[in-house]
This record gives sequence, C-alpha cells and structure tokens, in this order.
Amino acid sequence: MNASKIAQAARESSAAVAAASTEQRNATLGAMRHRLAERAKDILAANQKDLAEAQAAGLDGRLVDRLRFGKGKLQARMRSLEKIEALSDPVGQVFREEERPNGLRVARVRVPIGVILMVYEARPHVTVNAGAFCLKSGNAAILRGGSEAKRCNAILGDLWNTSLAEAGLPTDAIQVVSGTHEDIEALLRLDEYIDLVIPRGGKGLIEAVSRRSLIPVIKHYAGVCHVYVDEGADIDEAVAIAIDSKCLMPEVCNAMETLLVHSDHAGELPRIVSALEDAGVTLRGCLLTRSVCPQVEPASEDDWRTEYLDNLLAVRVVKNVQEAIRHINAYGSHHTDAIATADESRAQQFVDQVDSAVVLVNASTMFCDGEALGMGAEIGISTDKLHARGPMGLEDLTSYKFVIRGNGHVMGGNGP
Amino acid sequence: MNASKIAQAARESSAAVAAASTEQRNATLGAMRHRLAERAKDILAANQKDLAEAQAAGLDGRLVDRLRFGKGKLQARMRSLEKIEALSDPVGQVFREEERPNGLRVARVRVPIGVILMVYEARPHVTVNAGAFCLKSGNAAILRGGSEAKRCNAILGDLWNTSLAEAGLPTDAIQVVSGTHEDIEALLRLDEYIDLVIPRGGKGLIEAVSRRSLIPVIKHYAGVCHVYVDEGADIDEAVAIAIDSKCLMPEVCNAMETLLVHSDHAGELPRIVSALEDAGVTLRGCLLTRSVCPQVEPASEDDWRTEYLDNLLAVRVVKNVQEAIRHINAYGSHHTDAIATADESRAQQFVDQVDSAVVLVNASTMFCDGEALGMGAEIGISTDKLHARGPMGLEDLTSYKFVIRGNGHVMGGNGP
Repeated sequence: MNASKIAQAARESSAAVAAASTEQRNATLGAMRHRLAERAKDILAANQKDLAEAQAAGLDGRLVDRLRFGKGKLQARMRSLEKIEALSDPVGQVFREEERPNGLRVARVRVPIGVILMVYEARPHVTVNAGAFCLKSGNAAILRGGSEAKRCNAILGDLWNTSLAEAGLPTDAIQVVSGTHEDIEALLRLDEYIDLVIPRGGKGLIEAVSRRSLIPVIKHYAGVCHVYVDEGADIDEAVAIAIDSKCLMPEVCNAMETLLVHSDHAGELPRIVSALEDAGVTLRGCLLTRSVCPQVEPASEDDWRTEYLDNLLAVRVVKNVQEAIRHINAYGSHHTDAIATADESRAQQFVDQVDSAVVLVNASTMFCDGEALGMGAEIGISTDKLHARGPMGLEDLTSYKFVIRGNGHVMGGNGP
Repeated sequence: MNASKIAQAARESSAAVAAASTEQRNATLGAMRHRLAERAKDILAANQKDLAEAQAAGLDGRLVDRLRFGKGKLQARMRSLEKIEALSDPVGQVFREEERPNGLRVARVRVPIGVILMVYEARPHVTVNAGAFCLKSGNAAILRGGSEAKRCNAILGDLWNTSLAEAGLPTDAIQVVSGTHEDIEALLRLDEYIDLVIPRGGKGLIEAVSRRSLIPVIKHYAGVCHVYVDEGADIDEAVAIAIDSKCLMPEVCNAMETLLVHSDHAGELPRIVSALEDAGVTLRGCLLTRSVCPQVEPASEDDWRTEYLDNLLAVRVVKNVQEAIRHINAYGSHHTDAIATADESRAQQFVDQVDSAVVLVNASTMFCDGEALGMGAEIGISTDKLHARGPMGLEDLTSYKFVIRGNGHVMGGNGP
C-alpha cells in the first residue's frame, strides 16, 4: 500500500464529507446496511476463512474469539448502523452561544475533525462501527484492521466504497487498508493529512502507535476496574452490583477486576464470595479474605494490576474508604470504578478522589457505556484526559470553530 | 537540570494542587501579585541585564522587543493576576447533567489535566501568566522560558515558589526551569509524568517540540489572517474593520495580514489603500490592485503566506466570496478570518466554508481574544482541532470525569 496516497485521498475527500448534508451521510449508512444484508453470505464465508487461517496459525484464543463475525454479530452491526443513522447530527451544532455586553454575538459551532485513522486488531465489527461513526460526524476515515481479518475487512471496505458512491460521496471517504507495520508507521508520520489516530487493542498495539505517531492519539487502554463495598453498605445490593460488574460481559474493558471490601464486612465475605462463585467466578484473595474463605486462591501483587477480561476476580479487604481510594489510584488504570455505600459523604469523597474517567456510586461498572449514558453509541472509551475522556460519542469526533457576528465592531476607539 | 526529577516533582505536587481549595489557589496568585510589587526593582534590573546581553549577542530585534519587561508590562501582569484570581474556578464545575430514563444520574465534572509543560521564547510575562493559568485550573506547571530571559525568569520562578509556600502548596507546583535543548527533549519524553505540552513561539520552536514530544501537544501556530470585503459591503465600515484588524496590535497572531477585496470595489481601492497608508501601513498588492493604485509595491506568491506581524499588508482583488474562501483556505493558517458584508447568505457561506478557528462577520479580527470572548483571559490561541481550538481559557486547561449515581443500578436483569 502507498501510505501517502491513501492519506492524501482521505484528506481530499474529507472536505466533501464535511460539506455533505446530514441526509447524504445518513444515506451512506443506510446503503451500507442494505449491502451488509445482501452480502451476508460472502462476509460470513470470508470470516470463516480468516478464522480457519488464524486457528491454523495458532492465534491466541481470545483474539480468535474477537475475530469471529457470525450472523448474530452481523445483524447487531446492521441494527447499530440504524441507530447511528437515527442519532442527531453533531456537525453544525451550536453551543455556548452568548451575546457580549458590546453586542457581539459569539457561538461555537461543531465541525468535523477531518481525517481519522483507526488502528485495531481482529474485530471486523469495528470496520463497520468506526466507519459509521467517523462518517456520521463528518470525518473521512482510514481503517486499518489486523491482517488476521483481511478477507472479511476487504469485503466490508468494498461495501463502504459502494455505499459512499451510492450516496454521492467520494469513495475514499472510508478506506479500509491492510499493509505492513512499516506502512502503518508511514501513515503515523503523515500529520499533514491525518488529524487523529485512535488505536484500539492490546497495550502493545496502543503503545507502539503512540510512540511512533506524529499525529495526536487518543488512547483506549485497558480497564482494571474496581467495586468497593463500603462500611454500612447494603450487602445484597453490593453483591448484585459486583455480579453485574463482573459477570455480564467479563470480556469488556469496564468489567470489574478487583473487589474491595471494607473490613467491617469480613463476616459477610463467605456470603459475598459464594454468590460470586455461584455466578461462575473464580476468586483470588488477600490474606484476610482467605482467612475467612480458605477455598479462595491467594492473590499476588500482580493480580491487583491485572485486567483478566475473564471470569476471574481479585478480592481485597481494606480498612476504610481512604485505603480503597489509595488502592484504586495506585493499582487501577483510571478507567471505571464504583462504590457501593449508604453514606453520602464517603460517596462524595470517592467521587472526588478516585482519579478515573468514570466514577460510579451504587451502580454497576457496566454503565460506563456510551449508549447507557445517552450518547446513542460509542466509538470507544478514552483513558486519556485530553479532548475526550471516558465513553466517546459522536460529538467527541468533532472539533469546533468560534463564529463571531458583529455590526461593524472594532476594538480600538470607534466601534459600536 | 535533571528532567526526570523535575517532572516527577511536578507530578507529585499536582495531586496537592488538584485537591487544593479555590481559596488556596487564589491565595497563591494574590501572594505572587504582592511579591511582584515588592521585587519590581530587581525584576526590571534583571530584565535590563537580559536585554543588554541579548542586544550584545545580536538577537533579532523582534525577539528583543518581546524580551522587554518594563514597569508597564509588570503592572499589566499584576492586574492580570488579579483578573485571573477573580475568574470562577473551573475545577469541580458540573456540566451536561442529566437523569437517564432508568433513574441513573449522569454528570461530567471538570478536573485538572495534571502537569502542563510550557515551552516558550523571550517573553517573561508568560512566566507569570502561564503559571497563574495552570495553577488556577488546578494543574502543576513546568515553565521553560528561553535562555535569553534567564535572569528575569529566575526571579519570577523564585517568587512563584515563595507564593506557593505562603499559600500552603508545594513549591514544585510551578517550576521555572532553564536547561539545554537536550534537557527539553528529555522532558518531552516523560509522558508518564507530564500530561500536556504547550509550545509558544516561532514555527521552528513549535515544530521541534511537536516532532520530539511523546506527550500530547497543543500548538499555537502563526496567524495569516484575512479580512474579505464583500460586494455590497459598506466601505467605511469595512475600512474601519481593516484598520483595526491591522493596526491596533500588528504584532499579535490575530492581526490581519492580507486584505481581500471584491472586484466590484476596484474603484474604491484608492480610498481603501490611502486610508490604510494614512494609518501607517505599507501595502503589497496584486496586479489588479496595482493597476488602480500604482504606488503599491507588488506582492509575490510568498506574501500570501506570510505572517508579517508588522505594519505591512498584502492586498488582493477577488472575483467573489467563493474565490475569497478558496484563497483563505489555501494560503491562510486556519486561524482568524473576517468578512465585511451586507449579505446574510454570503456571510453564512463564509462562516460555513472558511476552515478557521475563529470566523468573524462584520467585526475586527482583534476580537479573537479570550477576554473579548468572555473567557476572562487566555493562555493562547490554539490552531489545533483537538481538545481546544481558538482562544483557550481556563476551562481548556481541564479535563473531566463522568460521575454516575444510581440506586443499586445493574444492567442485566434485576436492576431498578
């Protein structure tokens, strides 16, 4: 692949996408939805071939899982396209409008960022979702999926091109590219054409992209997420939150990985532990946990820092909310952390002092989710503090311009 | 200097600054204001020595101007500290608060970014202003001014340390550092301790910082700013806007550098040109301009891309608003551009299609200014599209966290 040609083509098409009407951008998503239905068989067959090759090559089982793109996932994508189509268009939205004392009218207007490069592994559904998100927000996209998904992604790329053409937009507005690591490195140096890079995948991938990129990067790092059961918390409610946070989707970044329990509840630990075991979770505990639940395996220092993404959970008894906060800030990943408590002042202390993108009080970590938070959908969960933090919706793929309207206003001397 | 030690100290102190009360942070600014008054003589004397050395070393005249920190500028800084003190505290501000249909209460709360590194040239006033801005927004700051300002900056750094201590904050929360280019490069690699870099100065400095930094950078590039005089525009009003945009402060980045005039006004050009000449501006014109104003020097292709920062102005006659927009997007720097027009539809076209941080209708480019736009003050004007674009106020030095409050909410099955 020719990195420079791809990036230039994206830049050129970005002006047309930014200027396109909401209807045109939505029409592309609609067309894509129909193309996916039409070509479902080919897509699933291509994914089968990708899967067979990945398994033959001995790819990590979890990566193989993420590569799988069956009928159910395809239909979920089609519904998701429909949802994104229905979301309100962020482009042109006016915010913080005000009239200054001198009569100058000042507003900020959302505009697309320009060209967005996504670098990701396995999951072919990102090829559909990220393309839709970038386009809906008026951006051109370069989507670089992993080579393990090449057959499936090639078809999805063709379908994006066809769908764009059908809506009267440049086919280069969404380019699905493969290419070697050197090609990606070349793309990452083209900051004159590409405005933003979003890498999604393992820590190694994200770090490699961040280190090499001259283009701004928004990182979506792992989640080592916690639920802290405070003194005086309702244990049934806390257990329900813990089970939901751990078991609903253990494979997602906002699943709980460590449960912290106030020492007052030590006597309740057998009940808490067995409820989690009944839900299929294997536990690793601190010394105190094991003193009341001897069947629990010991947790090592490493466990406190591990994102299991699996039915595994570390459990630690802490003295108080302050120790819980210290543990979370020291061992966690500043992603998503929850407290179960009946005490408002400790809830506020937790909210103020836990340095995470999402902090929850008496709610499951599963609610760290763009849809649950009213964004309609999300392109990922940022662990960065600049531009966007936490779940990123359509607006987070836009910038803004200041629009200032006067009446012959000048600053020196003679203005109105 | 020891880059790693400085960065670590900044990181450690950032927690205390983030947790400090508004009063404590304001008290630091107040203390600094008093220290500046107390030590005014020493500051001015140090600046005199810096100036003498710079002149002896044959430093560029413009840089020498920016280095100058006389009594007037010092007093302006003291007033500015008072203003920043009076601004409302962005830390803890709650925005986009809503209750979801399931009763979950979702809000975003502004939090400090963490550690901000400023890299700049000459201007000692930045040492006061940037320190105040970072601290007021709850961040720790590392301020690296140019070696040409070393004596003056050393005193200002001491005063920050004293002021912080007086307010009970760690003295490392604002560190004024010197150090070689290699030291700066070392700082730019410490992304584990530093969260944001803002370089301010010439293109060379900004590019060098951006290329070498592993830390996110917000760039403040040059302004090649335009005023376009549309067909049917009131010429007197347009001339007043042009003169204000060019002459009020020719040295600032949002000063006009090119005047575009609709060809219908060709007959008015002598009047426009002589009004600007009377205001002390030297003009360089396109062929058409020179055909009616033969005294005007010819403009070269380079002139359309030049940020003069001086009493110099390029003038070009264009066919229509479309050609004006094309010229601005092609030759400009996406900074600040204005249209003088009596036609709302062309105003809207200009606003929609000019890809600049600030777009003005019937107002001087001087209004691209944090204070004029209601931010109270500004730390600079971002030419980037991520995180902050255009004039940056206190809020732009913050991030946010999501705070979600439930009532035992779980996502699967049994939640309320």
